[in-house]
Amino acid sequence: MSRIVIALGGNALGDTPAEQRERIAGAAPALVGLIAQGHEIIVSHGNGPQVGAIHLAFDLASTATDRVPGMPLPECTAMSQGYIGYHLQQGILRELRRVGMPWHVASVVTQVEVDPGDPAFARPSKPIGAFYDEAAARELMARDPGVQMVEDAGRGWRVVVPSPRPVAIVERDSILNLLDHEFIVIACGGGGVPVVRDADGDLRGVPAVIDKDFASAALAEAVGADYLFILTAVDRVAIGFGTPDQRDLDELDLATAQRYVDEGQFGAGSMLPKVQAAMQFAASGPGRRAVICSLEKAPLAMQGRSGTVVQAAATPVVAAS
Amino acid sequence: MSRIVIALGGNALGDTPAEQRERIAGAAPALVGLIAQGHEIIVSHGNGPQVGAIHLAFDLASTATDRVPGMPLPECTAMSQGYIGYHLQQGILRELRRVGMPWHVASVVTQVEVDPGDPAFARPSKPIGAFYDEAAARELMARDPGVQMVEDAGRGWRVVVPSPRPVAIVERDSILNLLDHEFIVIACGGGGVPVVRDADGDLRGVPAVIDKDFASAALAEAVGADYLFILTAVDRVAIGFGTPDQRDLDELDLATAQRYVDEGQFGAGSMLPKVQAAMQFAASGPGRRAVICSLEKAPLAMQGRSGTVVQAAATPVVAAS
Repeated sequence: MSRIVIALGGNALGDTPAEQRERIAGAAPALVGLIAQGHEIIVSHGNGPQVGAIHLAFDLASTATDRVPGMPLPECTAMSQGYIGYHLQQGILRELRRVGMPWHVASVVTQVEVDPGDPAFARPSKPIGAFYDEAAARELMARDPGVQMVEDAGRGWRVVVPSPRPVAIVERDSILNLLDHEFIVIACGGGGVPVVRDADGDLRGVPAVIDKDFASAALAEAVGADYLFILTAVDRVAIGFGTPDQRDLDELDLATAQRYVDEGQFGAGSMLPKVQAAMQFAASGPGRRAVICSLEKAPLAMQGRSGTVVQAAATPVVAAS
Repeated sequence: MSRIVIALGGNALGDTPAEQRERIAGAAPALVGLIAQGHEIIVSHGNGPQVGAIHLAFDLASTATDRVPGMPLPECTAMSQGYIGYHLQQGILRELRRVGMPWHVASVVTQVEVDPGDPAFARPSKPIGAFYDEAAARELMARDPGVQMVEDAGRGWRVVVPSPRPVAIVERDSILNLLDHEFIVIACGGGGVPVVRDADGDLRGVPAVIDKDFASAALAEAVGADYLFILTAVDRVAIGFGTPDQRDLDELDLATAQRYVDEGQFGAGSMLPKVQAAMQFAASGPGRRAVICSLEKAPLAMQGRSGTVVQAAATPVVAAS
């Protein structure tokens, strides 16, 4: 039996409650399929569209009426964990019942500690929420100098916030405890609520977003997972992506992965963080493997029949003694 | 060591994130005080103002822009669990650190099953969200015949939704598992996300609100608690409340409590559900006690020095054999 952390993309969950329910219903067989293969799973998930909608809803409504308070980003992320966790619980429970497996499902509201000295705080880079046209974006930035916006992959302009690296999973022990008792655990939603430790050692939320793939890698390390599955829209990592020379990869050792990263083979907002998070986990301990694959083919990937496996060199050099 | 479920009022948590953080900081010493006395605690909480603000924010924003989807009430409740749970985790952890107690805190996103045949569905009664003046309320009802509003205790008009009784705590096993391993568990936020079981046995959310005191009583039964603490703004339950003959009560047996209920001694929207939830728990098993008290005096109440204890007859009649 292996312990597997599965990172679902927030975009893959759609934009409305009905879409989210549907997409989760579609995802549940693959997730439960891994359980049926005898593995333990922890599900983490992104929250880009969801936290964006929550943040925008409070923004608009708190401007329009004093009956709605302004809502800081960490609190919006905590809300998205409740919202998405609830749907995941219901959808996974339904699939478990369908196949007659008596597992339980629990969502743990998760804080993730970041370093207040992380250089990311000096340069906001993570796009969140709604897309604006350029004129609206420039107007928003002019109105509030604290707001930074960038053009996002040809889809429009979005607010960017700092995206610091995860340092520790605050609720690690809760997650481990449930895992050890045959629970499917949903944790680190939206990369976790980002918190820093103040001088007294107490935690407080910060307006940032932790990349869900890096948070998932940190979670996988923290719970001693054997596998990190990073789910995406394609079946495998490719080099020369979108060119006539595109080559899909079955596996990647760390040195080769680093070379491709240095060559700029992976898109900064899309495949690059996934490959880097995969490398981080693969490098974190012997035998640890990260798999980048599509949701539907996750059970196949577990059997080595789909996806890209990222791991330390397949044939490690053993020094002659 | 006793196992104690503590039901915090949603109103006691204030109306804004800053207020909520402050109120929780104020509440944490009393909660941790119970741990320091050697007890296990499960914290449940209301969410009236919070879910009202979330619901209103999505209502206003989804009407104003198609970038925000409409958000059903069960999903709003799940969001409020993430939001309030996050603040409770942080506030309780801070107090635990302050007094040097190495406990962990976990919030569990909780669904609570209700009976689709519950008569409450035929007569919406639970006020939620913002207060409106009468003219605005009548306009809202005229615009949408599905919306029912009532005048709430002289404070204005509010939307009312069905308030069915809890039947089962879906995440009971997750909660028990954490409790058994020295976790402070936060669960059943806002009375839980109300769900019904469809013909296939699957769960789905329903637009209703479960009274948090009844949900807490059901939770206390489900986890085999010894005590249910229902926290309120006053130190004790009183009869003749607000009259020259007001009498504060140290204890209430079930027969006397029922007599006072029948006499109409307790306000329908305030003390009545608390007393009824307390009676339900006290009647659910031998030795079970419910305590209605103020937050600040909860540790005193645990020592019998404040609050009103509701229990089966203090001196049970033993049949001569």
